Amino acid sequence: MHDQITSETAAKVLDAAWEKAQELGVPVSVAIVDAGRDLLAFRRHEDAPLASTDISISKAYTARSLNMNTGDLGPLTQPGGLLYGMEHTQARTLVTFAGGRPLQSGESFIGAVGVAGGSPDQDDAIAAAGAEAVQ
Amino acid sequence: MHDQITSETAAKVLDAAWEKAQELGVPVSVAIVDAGRDLLAFRRHEDAPLASTDISISKAYTARSLNMNTGDLGPLTQPGGLLYGMEHTQARTLVTFAGGRPLQSGESFIGAVGVAGGSPDQDDAIAAAGAEAVQ
Amino acid sequence: MHDQITSETAAKVLDAAWEKAQELGVPVSVAIVDAGRDLLAFRRHEDAPLASTDISISKAYTARSLNMNTGDLGPLTQPGGLLYGMEHTQARTLVTFAGGRPLQSGESFIGAVGVAGGSPDQDDAIAAAGAEAVQ
Amino acid sequence: MHDQITSETAAKVLDAAWEKAQELGVPVSVAIVDAGRDLLAFRRHEDAPLASTDISISKAYTARSLNMNTGDLGPLTQPGGLLYGMEHTQARTLVTFAGGRPLQSGESFIGAVGVAGGSPDQDDAIAAAGAEAVQ
Repeated sequence: MHDQITSETAAKVLDAAWEKAQELGVPVSVAIVDAGRDLLAFRRHEDAPLASTDISISKAYTARSLNMNTGDLGPLTQPGGLLYGMEHTQARTLVTFAGGRPLQSGESFIGAVGVAGGSPDQDDAIAAAGAEAVQ
Repeated sequence: MHDQITSETAAKVLDAAWEKAQELGVPVSVAIVDAGRDLLAFRRHEDAPLASTDISISKAYTARSLNMNTGDLGPLTQPGGLLYGMEHTQARTLVTFAGGRPLQSGESFIGAVGVAGGSPDQDDAIAAAGAEAVQ
Repeated sequence: MHDQITSETAAKVLDAAWEKAQELGVPVSVAIVDAGRDLLAFRRHEDAPLASTDISISKAYTARSLNMNTGDLGPLTQPGGLLYGMEHTQARTLVTFAGGRPLQSGESFIGAVGVAGGSPDQDDAIAAAGAEAVQ
Repeated sequence: MHDQITSETAAKVLDAAWEKAQELGVPVSVAIVDAGRDLLAFRRHEDAPLASTDISISKAYTARSLNMNTGDLGPLTQPGGLLYGMEHTQARTLVTFAGGRPLQSGESFIGAVGVAGGSPDQDDAIAAAGAEAVQ
């Protein structure tokens, strides 16, 4: 079961993440997907690398695909890992480094946020700031 | 020739389009791409049809691919038209009905806006409101 | 049987087409493919529409796929036409309006040239100028 | 921030790279993309491997996607690396070995050059010669 995330809430998540990115001084892309993994809101800073567009969307997609932080997937999908190769099973290639986090409202998974453009640690801190905006 | 569009300007275009959509009472998706056709900003209303996500992005992509309003492409790509089949020549299938408009700053094409979710006429009116925000 | 086209010859075709485009005052993309339909040379004017990149390459690809001028394909692929739908049978969607021409050296088909960015008639005149450079 | 690269400048980059390739005696493909990662200029030597066409274009695409030399990506995307798997997140698969370099004009990233056909070291030396032509 999940509640529906509104466009209003997605905008709130995006703003919280964007503010954190500006505080850290990192030009990034921020993407918010709904419970069905479809894009609800997106913003890219003009100085963020172009690759960050698709990486941020894929991080959000990944986080909601598994209801996990993308950074926790890395060890599992390495050669020899428990889920080696799983990243190629979906319509979008899953991203297995940090920067994607599910959005939870109480017990419900209502969507996910993905951030790209900085280091995985920076991206994750920005995604966390977004995720906190709905808790 | 083109100037670079900033994330700030893209947000201004999105807000102008969103306001027009609310005035018309139509739940839509609005997408802004830069001069290179890469996504800069996006927002979908939770009541907009899911198909509107990709249609709005493709409309913006199309408008900047040809520096034309997407509604002007329809007659050209019909059977018997001058450019029959052109919509299948790009990485994304081009959209040949109304709702996508290039963004111009003076003589420069700086990007494009695409809107989907309403009727083509409604989508186009909303896109036009967005495009006017940068002129 | 076909002779191999050299990079030198492709450059000569491109230059002849480019000169004709400048004479007509049309910013275009020009693509030259070899006998195997692989890209040998390409140039896009910065004011040509972005869609012209893939359209010019696809026109050259189409012209060599069938050893025909692309403009002659239009009537054949319309609804009710003899080859309706054929344009979707290859790795790249074939283009069925004017602007692509095969390159011939004597009896041999050695490649093709494709032009996009102007009207089909302008594109075809520019492609013809390129094709003449190898005859 | 980026300025627009002209077709003229792209031709200058291509010529500088081509000259370097001839000096090294390596038949290669050379591709130049603009700030939006779209192809501006391309040339393949008739003796270069056919695979070099797409590899050179993808190297240029990669270098501009991240504003990095492609050779610096290799360690990051290996198993255990910080960005393991990132190469599969974009419309074109990113190339993570040497031969692609961003083009900079002052502080602006205006595009990228990609070279393939020789060893990664040779390709990189040729790409560097191209990149120097715009500095």
